[in-house]
Amino acid sequence: MSDKLMISRMGASVPDTIWVQGRNLCTELLGKIGFAEMTWLELTGELPSKAQTTLLEAMLLTLVEHGATPMAIATRLTYLGAPEALQGAVAAGLLGMGTTFAGTAEGAAKMLYAGLKDAPADADIDTIAKTIVDRELDAGRPIFGIGHNLHKPIDPRTPVLFAIAEQQGYRGRFVDLIEAVAAAAEARTGKSMPVNATGALGALCCELGLDWRLCRGLAVIGRSVGLVGHIAEEPRNPIAKQIWMHTEEEIARSVAIANAKQGQDA
Amino acid sequence: MSDKLMISRMGASVPDTIWVQGRNLCTELLGKIGFAEMTWLELTGELPSKAQTTLLEAMLLTLVEHGATPMAIATRLTYLGAPEALQGAVAAGLLGMGTTFAGTAEGAAKMLYAGLKDAPADADIDTIAKTIVDRELDAGRPIFGIGHNLHKPIDPRTPVLFAIAEQQGYRGRFVDLIEAVAAAAEARTGKSMPVNATGALGALCCELGLDWRLCRGLAVIGRSVGLVGHIAEEPRNPIAKQIWMHTEEEIARSVAIANAKQGQDA
Amino acid sequence: MSDKLMISRMGASVPDTIWVQGRNLCTELLGKIGFAEMTWLELTGELPSKAQTTLLEAMLLTLVEHGATPMAIATRLTYLGAPEALQGAVAAGLLGMGTTFAGTAEGAAKMLYAGLKDAPADADIDTIAKTIVDRELDAGRPIFGIGHNLHKPIDPRTPVLFAIAEQQGYRGRFVDLIEAVAAAAEARTGKSMPVNATGALGALCCELGLDWRLCRGLAVIGRSVGLVGHIAEEPRNPIAKQIWMHTEEEIARSVAIANAKQGQDA
Amino acid sequence: MSDKLMISRMGASVPDTIWVQGRNLCTELLGKIGFAEMTWLELTGELPSKAQTTLLEAMLLTLVEHGATPMAIATRLTYLGAPEALQGAVAAGLLGMGTTFAGTAEGAAKMLYAGLKDAPADADIDTIAKTIVDRELDAGRPIFGIGHNLHKPIDPRTPVLFAIAEQQGYRGRFVDLIEAVAAAAEARTGKSMPVNATGALGALCCELGLDWRLCRGLAVIGRSVGLVGHIAEEPRNPIAKQIWMHTEEEIARSVAIANAKQGQDA
Repeated sequence: MSDKLMISRMGASVPDTIWVQGRNLCTELLGKIGFAEMTWLELTGELPSKAQTTLLEAMLLTLVEHGATPMAIATRLTYLGAPEALQGAVAAGLLGMGTTFAGTAEGAAKMLYAGLKDAPADADIDTIAKTIVDRELDAGRPIFGIGHNLHKPIDPRTPVLFAIAEQQGYRGRFVDLIEAVAAAAEARTGKSMPVNATGALGALCCELGLDWRLCRGLAVIGRSVGLVGHIAEEPRNPIAKQIWMHTEEEIARSVAIANAKQGQDA
Repeated sequence: MSDKLMISRMGASVPDTIWVQGRNLCTELLGKIGFAEMTWLELTGELPSKAQTTLLEAMLLTLVEHGATPMAIATRLTYLGAPEALQGAVAAGLLGMGTTFAGTAEGAAKMLYAGLKDAPADADIDTIAKTIVDRELDAGRPIFGIGHNLHKPIDPRTPVLFAIAEQQGYRGRFVDLIEAVAAAAEARTGKSMPVNATGALGALCCELGLDWRLCRGLAVIGRSVGLVGHIAEEPRNPIAKQIWMHTEEEIARSVAIANAKQGQDA
Repeated sequence: MSDKLMISRMGASVPDTIWVQGRNLCTELLGKIGFAEMTWLELTGELPSKAQTTLLEAMLLTLVEHGATPMAIATRLTYLGAPEALQGAVAAGLLGMGTTFAGTAEGAAKMLYAGLKDAPADADIDTIAKTIVDRELDAGRPIFGIGHNLHKPIDPRTPVLFAIAEQQGYRGRFVDLIEAVAAAAEARTGKSMPVNATGALGALCCELGLDWRLCRGLAVIGRSVGLVGHIAEEPRNPIAKQIWMHTEEEIARSVAIANAKQGQDA
Repeated sequence: MSDKLMISRMGASVPDTIWVQGRNLCTELLGKIGFAEMTWLELTGELPSKAQTTLLEAMLLTLVEHGATPMAIATRLTYLGAPEALQGAVAAGLLGMGTTFAGTAEGAAKMLYAGLKDAPADADIDTIAKTIVDRELDAGRPIFGIGHNLHKPIDPRTPVLFAIAEQQGYRGRFVDLIEAVAAAAEARTGKSMPVNATGALGALCCELGLDWRLCRGLAVIGRSVGLVGHIAEEPRNPIAKQIWMHTEEEIARSVAIANAKQGQDA
């Protein structure tokens, strides 16, 4: 067998003690820290400051619930088929937290880190923003974290998140940069393209110094709460079976119309 | 299409407002409540008291991290194969939160609710406990939430959780009952069978009045944090590939030994 | 480290050879056997007879596709959110193959194996069937594999599957028993309660001598084909976004009606 | 509600008939076609020729089983935690079929389609191959479908798959191109870089005219069979708990060594 060591410092257990990140779960953590602090501890190996905790809590809350999303529908349909396995219903919903939704926070954070990577302290943020916008739009790519189909002219979550960041001393150059990117995109396209909630989350991940890959992780953690919430509501307000039946009926109706139309055309 | 209404009151959005459980996300929740309060709100539709929040936070923390569990290993192996989809790696780990692990909290809560369902206020808890223990052991079934392979003679998490519950005014008959069940099981079997952490969580779910089905949901929420934590550690301390290689080597070694032994026996 | 051997005989690889179930993939399997034979080999470690292959293929085909099922909808919604991870979209759909749908085949097979476990060769099938039906209905439980919401008075798949089994020499006492169970259930309830497709699959699993736990596995294998099929159709006929939008609209409409009604009642 | 039609032609059901891709399941498919033909029908809406079926079967077989892969380990660990939900254990394993493993078939197919997209019939394949190799290696990217850690100097599956394709009349320009790519990569790097199994599968997807996105779908279908196979073996040869225990032991041992070493260094 390989001589290479297999190191992990996440946790360990002996009969009378459970260690989490090198801390005693029972004497140092339970009843001493909150759930958001535990999240930070798991992600970084350190306990957060009060300011970091406050900002992280707001970020985690942002993506918990957004009504009948594709993820929430998938969870409720899966729970209908496999009520014995709540974990499977939550997993099914989380699987939709991909590039289309949560991936934009990740993409925004990656873009912001890259944009400021080698930038000197006095670099002109607007110039960097314009370079990013031109590069992405010239290549025909969307700019992560900018614009929203529903929330117009602004995404109401963004100013609240940035205000909390400012109160906690975490409004810095990454927030400046994404706001400059939004302004540059508006200037070039002539369309309203404000920073959306995933863009704000991406910028705040950078302000907190978290790996851009973990943006999606924060989205997954927050959404897991929301998906358990949907399972909790399903017995009170059952909608899964109706969504199924409506879909079958709508497809049958649509196919009949399409077939009749083909018949007429023939 | 069916005339039946399709009601859900989890959340709704209009361009300038996002409603979560009938509350304005941006003005009433973000920066105003913590992540555990949001979890309670999602599960019940109400905001929790301070005491409920404190107890829920301890419960959520309990199952976040337990080192290299089967779930954590599954998550890290999946991340090795599909690093483009962090959500899939978390989902893979959550899928192991079934009857063997998280299901015992659920089973304990169900057992405790049933045990006290029609019990008058002055019912004798010890008698109820003995009835439960005799029924389960006579049928050859394990008693949910009692005993632990590693944490002996007691599970160190249980007294801490029950102490927090007592401080917050939530140590009631359900805690009494599971302690009585443990005592009755020890009396009958002569073996040490203390209340374990999942038993404690099940009892506290009952004290908080949460549906027993949601015990597994709390486990899933807490563990989602831990699994994202394992993904965060994997780049620093990569172990997924080693687990895979060790397993292949160990199987090859074992099969060679078994085959050689069969040859000798023949 | 433990001295216990870690044995698995599923497969092994050396630079120039890949072994699957002790057979050389490249010289004994590829181009020599079909996909259903490979499935049998994986499940049992043996290659099937021609009759077993024919029956297994019919069984696998039965559950591949049933239109816009909850599983297919979950897959398509997940693909909308995470198109970078087709495997996640298939997984999301498979997670709905639980007790409600695939579990009935499993339950039927378990019931049939138990019913004939200690029965002598000349046992009276009708008497065994009546015992099962009385026990289940007296306990208020549904009988697995009997009755169907849509497919009445008979499930058209059942006679076809049983005819194929008969042609291949696999119509035996388990098929007799489930037909007797259906007849006994009809006699007792006065309602039409024919053997449905999952009941037929459960009986045929028993005829083939497969573990009842693997019934759900056959359903999962078959359905994985169907779910990839739905992903293949989605770009041609995109419906995922419409299902999401319809659901949001229907909930908004329903909640408005319900709220207005509450206002009138007040 | 939107006026847009919601079209899907995968399947439909009325009480006495189940339609799959416009065909009557009971009279046209069950007992008439095999499992691989059904797979082709689901993916394309058409029944395959005999040659297409033979080639598709070989392709599906290729990825079914490769021993104790990360996916198989994830499935067995998940089954340990949630034996009530076989579907979840299979899903957990499938979630690892991402870019690292199955994604290379997808990437190879995409590369081959792009390479021959606007190429005239008499285009020089070697020149196209060299262009691809230079572009990818200059950009520091790996070439999909070329080279293998274990299977050297050739992947034994590749010549078998290409021989079957040739027998069935499906060895065309895409196979020529991937072989030319391998030769060009060897010429430039001086290392042995043969076409591996995923490269062969990608090329054959192109020869069959399947969308490159479906390469990963074929891998998922094949592997679902293998993962159910691992679940079938687990009761006979239980290894999941041992993998867990070995991993915990190995981490404890490694951390102790690392800590001792740090102490010496201090």
